[in-house]
Order: sequence, then C-alpha cells, then structure tokens
Amino acid sequence: MGARVSVSIGDVERAAGRIAGHVRRTPVIEVSPGLFMKLEALQHSGSFKARGGFNRALSAGRLPEAGLIAASGGNHGLAVAYVARSLGVRAEIFVPTVSSPVKVAGLRALGAEVTQVGAVYAEAYEASVKRAAETGALDVHAYDQPEVIAGQGTVGLELLEQTGGVDTVLVAVGGGGLVAGITVVLAGRARVVAVEPELIPTLHRALEAGGPVPVGVSGVGSDALGASRTGALTYEITAAAGVESLLVGDEAIVEARREMWRDHRLAVEHAGATAYAALLSGAYRPAPGERVAVVVCGANTDPATLV
Amino acid sequence: MGARVSVSIGDVERAAGRIAGHVRRTPVIEVSPGLFMKLEALQHSGSFKARGGFNRALSAGRLPEAGLIAASGGNHGLAVAYVARSLGVRAEIFVPTVSSPVKVAGLRALGAEVTQVGAVYAEAYEASVKRAAETGALDVHAYDQPEVIAGQGTVGLELLEQTGGVDTVLVAVGGGGLVAGITVVLAGRARVVAVEPELIPTLHRALEAGGPVPVGVSGVGSDALGASRTGALTYEITAAAGVESLLVGDEAIVEARREMWRDHRLAVEHAGATAYAALLSGAYRPAPGERVAVVVCGANTDPATLV
Repeated sequence: MGARVSVSIGDVERAAGRIAGHVRRTPVIEVSPGLFMKLEALQHSGSFKARGGFNRALSAGRLPEAGLIAASGGNHGLAVAYVARSLGVRAEIFVPTVSSPVKVAGLRALGAEVTQVGAVYAEAYEASVKRAAETGALDVHAYDQPEVIAGQGTVGLELLEQTGGVDTVLVAVGGGGLVAGITVVLAGRARVVAVEPELIPTLHRALEAGGPVPVGVSGVGSDALGASRTGALTYEITAAAGVESLLVGDEAIVEARREMWRDHRLAVEHAGATAYAALLSGAYRPAPGERVAVVVCGANTDPATLV
Repeated sequence: MGARVSVSIGDVERAAGRIAGHVRRTPVIEVSPGLFMKLEALQHSGSFKARGGFNRALSAGRLPEAGLIAASGGNHGLAVAYVARSLGVRAEIFVPTVSSPVKVAGLRALGAEVTQVGAVYAEAYEASVKRAAETGALDVHAYDQPEVIAGQGTVGLELLEQTGGVDTVLVAVGGGGLVAGITVVLAGRARVVAVEPELIPTLHRALEAGGPVPVGVSGVGSDALGASRTGALTYEITAAAGVESLLVGDEAIVEARREMWRDHRLAVEHAGATAYAALLSGAYRPAPGERVAVVVCGANTDPATLV
C-alpha cells in the first residue's frame, strides 16, 4: 500500500521536548544479557498513555475553558485526567455504564468529571464526540491522533538512548498508538513486533484484511487492550513499516505477569505482561545474541491478583 | 571513638567486580527534580541482600561441600538460598519455629533445606552456628561480616555512578549492613542518614549508648528490619563516619508504602518504604536544591496489602 505517513520522527522529537518535565523518563533494566525491559508502567498515571495525552494537550496552544475530554474507562481516561489536573484544566471522561465503580472512583480521585453513558465503549465514545462539539473541549483520542502517536513514540526515543540500540522491540497492542509511535522512531533501526492477546487481535486481523476491521474483545487483556479495531492512522504507520503481529494466549499472559512479580518484583497489569509473554511462551524466539527490548506498558491493576 | 575501619572502599570496589553478572544493576529513577530512588527492591530475591550473599560466597574461594548456611526467616534467608542455587551449592537456612509457613515454603521453593528451631531468632541463629561448626558450611551473616557489608556497599557505588552524586542518602536500617556498606562508599561525599522504625531503633539506641545495645522489636518493620541489635562492625563503621539516625512511626511507613504504589506503581515491603517515610513525614526536610537519594531496599511482601 502507499504509505501516507502522517507522523514523522521529527514529530516525535518535538513531542519529547514538549512533554519533558511533565512525564517521567522511565528506567530500562537489563534482565539478562541482551534482554531489556522498558519500565513504562512506572509512568505517571500508571501507563504510557500520559505521554500522548500531554503531547496532544501541549500541542494545542491555549487550552479551551472546557478543558480536555476523552472516552475511556481505563488507562487512557486516567492519563487524560492526570494531564488535565497537571495543567490546571478540567477533564471530562465518558465511560460506559458497565464501568466498575473502582475505575470511576479512580477517575474522580484525579479530579475528572465522569459521565457514564451507553452500554458499550463505542456509545460512550460517540457521546463524548457530541459533547466535545457542544463545549469546545479538546478531545484526546485513545490512540488514533497524530499528537497522541507522536507522544507515545517518545518511549522509543528513550529506549534507543537507554539501550544504545536493540535488534527487536516487543510491544503490546490495543488500539495501536504505542506500537505506531515506536514504529515511527525505530523503523529501519530495529524490528518492531506487535504482541496481541489471541482474544483481541486488532492489528493481526487488520494486517490480514489490508485495513482495520472490527474484532471481538474478551479475555484478561480486555480492560487495557480492549479496542475493538485498530486505528486508521496506527494501521497505516505499522502496515507501511512491515510490523508483524504475534498472538499470545491468555494463559501465557497470566503466567508472564506472575513471573514478573515472582522473579522481578514488577507489579504489572495483564497488558503490561503481554509483550513479555511472547518471549516466555516461545511465540517469539530471539536468535543467539539478538538484543531484545520488551515494553512494560502499564500497571493499573489490583495487586492482590498478582499471586 | 577510635575507628578501626575494617571495610574499605577498595573492598567494596572488589566486591562489585566479584558479584557483577550475578546481581542486577538496579535502576535509579528521579521522581522529582533532585529526588532519586534507587530501586533495589528489583534485585534478585527481592532485596539488596543478594549482594552481600554473593560477595561472601565468592570471596571464599572453593565453597565447602556443605554449601552455605544462614539464620533468617526473611530477606537474608531468601538471598542466601538464591545465591546457593545460582552457584550450584547447598543452602541450609535456620528459622525460628514461629516462622510463617509461607516464608518456609518460599525458602524451600529456592531449593534450601529449612530447619525450624527455637522460639526466637537468636535461638535459630545459635543453632545455625553450631550446625556450621559440624558441617563446615560457610556461614553468611545477615549483616555483621566484612564481605557482607562490602557487598551491600555496591549499592552506594552504583548510586554514585547513576546520579552523578547526591548530597544526602536515606537508608533504612535493620541490622545495619546496608547503611554500613553505603557509608564506606559515601562518607565524605554525601550525608548518610539512617532511618529506623520507632519500634526497632537498633542504630539509634546504639549511637546514644556508644555501642550496640539490645532493643525491642515490633511493628510493621519487624519482618525485614527486625534485628534486636545492630552489629559490632556495622556500628563501628557508621558511628565513626558520623551517620545520624532518624526515627519514623509505623503510620508514616504504612502511608509511604501506599503512596509508592498509588503514585509510582512501586510495590514494596514496609522496610522498602521506611527511608521514603522520613521524607514524606517531614522527619527529614531537605534544604532547597539539596539532592537526595532514597534507597528502596526490598519488596518481599504480600501485594494484596498494598491497597
């Protein structure tokens, strides 16, 4: 396909300058020779999502009085609420009525106004779009906006600097914002491998079909990787760069998450263990001497479920 | 007092060379400008103790057929079991009969032979000393051996390299091995501040008394900081260098631990939050512009208790 790449590495570099001081430069650990983990679960609001949120907000110039608006009951909503609080503006977050009281309380604890509407995410999203048109709030998409993708791409820039370069990067995929941003940075310098739960194969099916298609959403990754299709822009970027997608079963994800706590004392959510699951399960087998980085993307989880 | 310093910075530097490849170089994060956390809770076996254990074992030349022996139902026992398994030798760990089945199971899962004897730690320790004399196993003390202190001191070497130097280091104290090792490295280069639970003031009372004295052991720090007196050597090193000891209450430790999970997604044990508690509670107040490092020393905890 003809790639109309809408996010450049320059965009990511400018994003890095814009969000510096607002986001954490998260550490990289070398867990065994040549195997690196980028601990992005230690980011503000507990996932990489704060990067895209800050870049979207700080790219807008003066923010509207109505502040930021987003639809998400998960990591994206927490991140947008965190970004708004940091920048001193309002946040309005739309979540489906089925969202857990714990998540709603978490959003409210960050000062967000929470609107529960619709039976499924898509309905909450539509309501947020309508509301944004009424109030003039700045909409922050969970993955399919250039500023959001450029923000997430700063994970890739740091990874390059902190490791001195790797051969392969394994990244979990929900909507695809993180893998797209990392692809912008690393395409041509490393092999980017998307890892998805078998039960939520958004990018996998899109690559087979030649474009985004709806997929079912279930299993342990649902709360953080539960997009029902990949984005148009995220698809374009990853497909043009030849990113491949590997699928891992829920059992492998659960086991990888337990191992990360047991052997590394890293408390992460299932999404945060999904990329590592590809290694542990053998879905991805590095060649001898291959330098591999795993992005540990989130930790918004109930720690009681780690053992 | 006349300082007969028995551990030198050269000892720590040699320890670093000896244990490299066996221990993790744990990351440092800058959580706010000038405030660093050394994430030693991500060390093998979940605490800094593996450093001293490896250095003790690897300093011995050929290890005896009986392997390693130690008395500890906590982090030290886990570390010695881990070190023995890594080096392919036996580990015998003595614990008091009151030790929880979970801890005993954890030791056995690492391949250690566990002997439950005595009502309190001191009796288990005496039994381990007697047993070592019978079997010829190499005893690894929890804190009061030069090789153990030198091993723990490698935390200080890394901290220097990773931060480029700080003004102050806050370190939790149980028996005192970690603070002594760090003092060997940083004395004259930074202010070393020991932080102890009010309910286990081993170093605090020793500094008041002019030498190690027994103290009561209770409260949330008991499982990991529960030495009933500081060591002779650890006392000598810290007192000679003018290390000061601050006390923090259990409520401050509990709150610091919760905050570390809530705001940083760091899952740590109470001991691992004790040094940070001195900052959060105001027991230690940095001057404007002061560069402060907090050693996050352990994470062997039930994550269900984090929230």
